[in-house]
Amino acid sequence: MYGAIIHAPGDVRREERPDPTLLEPTDAIVRTVAACVCGSDLWRYRGIADVPEPTPIGHEICGVVTAIGADVRTVAVGDFVVGGFNPSDGTCALCAKGATANCLHGARYDGAQAEQVRIPHADGTLVATPSMPEDDLVPSLLALSDVMCTGWHAAVSAGVTEGSTVAVVGDGAVGLCAVLAAVQLGASTVIAMSRHAPRQEVARRFGATHVIAERGEDGAAAVKELTDGIGADCVLECVGTEDARHQALAVVRDGGAIGLVGVPHGDLPVNELFWRNVGLRGGPANCAAYLPELLEKVLTREIEPGLVFDLELPLAEIGEAYAAMDERRAIKVLVRP
Amino acid sequence: MYGAIIHAPGDVRREERPDPTLLEPTDAIVRTVAACVCGSDLWRYRGIADVPEPTPIGHEICGVVTAIGADVRTVAVGDFVVGGFNPSDGTCALCAKGATANCLHGARYDGAQAEQVRIPHADGTLVATPSMPEDDLVPSLLALSDVMCTGWHAAVSAGVTEGSTVAVVGDGAVGLCAVLAAVQLGASTVIAMSRHAPRQEVARRFGATHVIAERGEDGAAAVKELTDGIGADCVLECVGTEDARHQALAVVRDGGAIGLVGVPHGDLPVNELFWRNVGLRGGPANCAAYLPELLEKVLTREIEPGLVFDLELPLAEIGEAYAAMDERRAIKVLVRP
Repeated sequence: MYGAIIHAPGDVRREERPDPTLLEPTDAIVRTVAACVCGSDLWRYRGIADVPEPTPIGHEICGVVTAIGADVRTVAVGDFVVGGFNPSDGTCALCAKGATANCLHGARYDGAQAEQVRIPHADGTLVATPSMPEDDLVPSLLALSDVMCTGWHAAVSAGVTEGSTVAVVGDGAVGLCAVLAAVQLGASTVIAMSRHAPRQEVARRFGATHVIAERGEDGAAAVKELTDGIGADCVLECVGTEDARHQALAVVRDGGAIGLVGVPHGDLPVNELFWRNVGLRGGPANCAAYLPELLEKVLTREIEPGLVFDLELPLAEIGEAYAAMDERRAIKVLVRP
Repeated sequence: MYGAIIHAPGDVRREERPDPTLLEPTDAIVRTVAACVCGSDLWRYRGIADVPEPTPIGHEICGVVTAIGADVRTVAVGDFVVGGFNPSDGTCALCAKGATANCLHGARYDGAQAEQVRIPHADGTLVATPSMPEDDLVPSLLALSDVMCTGWHAAVSAGVTEGSTVAVVGDGAVGLCAVLAAVQLGASTVIAMSRHAPRQEVARRFGATHVIAERGEDGAAAVKELTDGIGADCVLECVGTEDARHQALAVVRDGGAIGLVGVPHGDLPVNELFWRNVGLRGGPANCAAYLPELLEKVLTREIEPGLVFDLELPLAEIGEAYAAMDERRAIKVLVRP
């Protein structure tokens, strides 16, 4: 089969790779219908994370099951499936608590920008659609494999609920999905902080009640003007830089909470958090816990997270897919094998 | 009147001080029925915090209103009242959110180890009992002015709810009240980490289902044995040292939360929090938000937080009250003027 290999920063190529095979009785093999490039894939592309040797890359797909291990019960060959980027067994004590991202037997996989992928813990990880979905649903189904679950996790972690005021820091695909999540969870005010017109447009289509282009102190002042002068109940920090965390602290109200899904770099001002009674919660998303509800919302067309894909390319042009995201010419690139 | 003055580390004396007077139309003057010494008062007593000049000290009382300002509406002269250590106006945008500890016009007071005290924002801060309470309720009413609200805040901040598994780090008066709070909020397992027999006894009377004397790795292993091998859903950190925070991290499960009410000293391992999906929330307690419910529980004798007082002294022996707490001869000392 063909699949993407990252050789070095700036160098991702489609190459021939061996077909994946079942390694464990709990595995499934999925033929990719659509895959995509993640913001976190860019770390290696940009040389921020190491590429010690040529490595298959990608962790977001949806597709059709072509083989299952002997112990797989909940998906069958021929099923159209989506699954989160962080496979979980669905049976351990942490999965039972809904903390599937931290499954005691959790696995990560890489190499999903490819024609086929082996998915570990198929029963705990994959969810099948009742029938073959219409093709225009594919982008939204694909978004469930990471960015929509991650945006949802930001909102859940910050405790967004009916009537919350919410500000979202970060207008990448995750930030935009966090806007959608906040709206779905009943927030009355959802402020997207974005200064890129195409992203502002997606934020509005996702239900943002306000878009603020300013950053720093000006951005904080603009958020406060929309929130009784005190700041937002919940801030969804979808970047991970120290700047983004400071922005989040500047727009959250005292007694509010920050949902954190950008992998944190830099320090935390624990004393400020404490005296201001600001909560902090987040991490990798509990995809398996969120998928059934989110899949239902996609299939009934209640949400359309696939709007974050503004470019579609064939796997043969995987290099251009990375370049477009790296150069911010695209929000997120969908790749067809 | 007489009141306590801290002159220097180790030197607290009862002295004559001017009677307090109404300074603002929202003030009340309260004649002290009982006051007490707080763990945080010990910072100055131990020389950890500065004592730049002789200063009235104390921030926990209950008593009888003797005068009110022209704008006070909800308490009257002759009322028996309790109030939190952090006065709040009850009307600002943050109080409206329940974040009374961070009231936009919040005030702190000191000097409550005295015969009389001026309380700012009387309407937002003080709650009156329907009638003069029986004397044996006084310790529990006094506990509402700080430690019970603070323990409650730890449990609320960590999200303790029906069926939660909870571990409490710290067996001071606040930690013990946190045990009581977790039990009241419906936790099914409440583990008190304590190695002092008298404190273990209070924890048990407050409803702790388990007491663990071990600390560090051994303590964490013991908590895990009681929590399906994964750790507690909620950990209430009622100390504030870096050691205590590390203990909290060692006993919380992935995807769980730490409620933080000990003033934090030292750093936070933000990367560990993130990858383990551990939430962190806390700060000074929202006393005014919690008082009505907690007062009702005390008056109906559903809870008896006053059990944390294991020594009672007259104000004339305030020096001994401090020494007894400093030397850990007492959990918490009640002072009668």
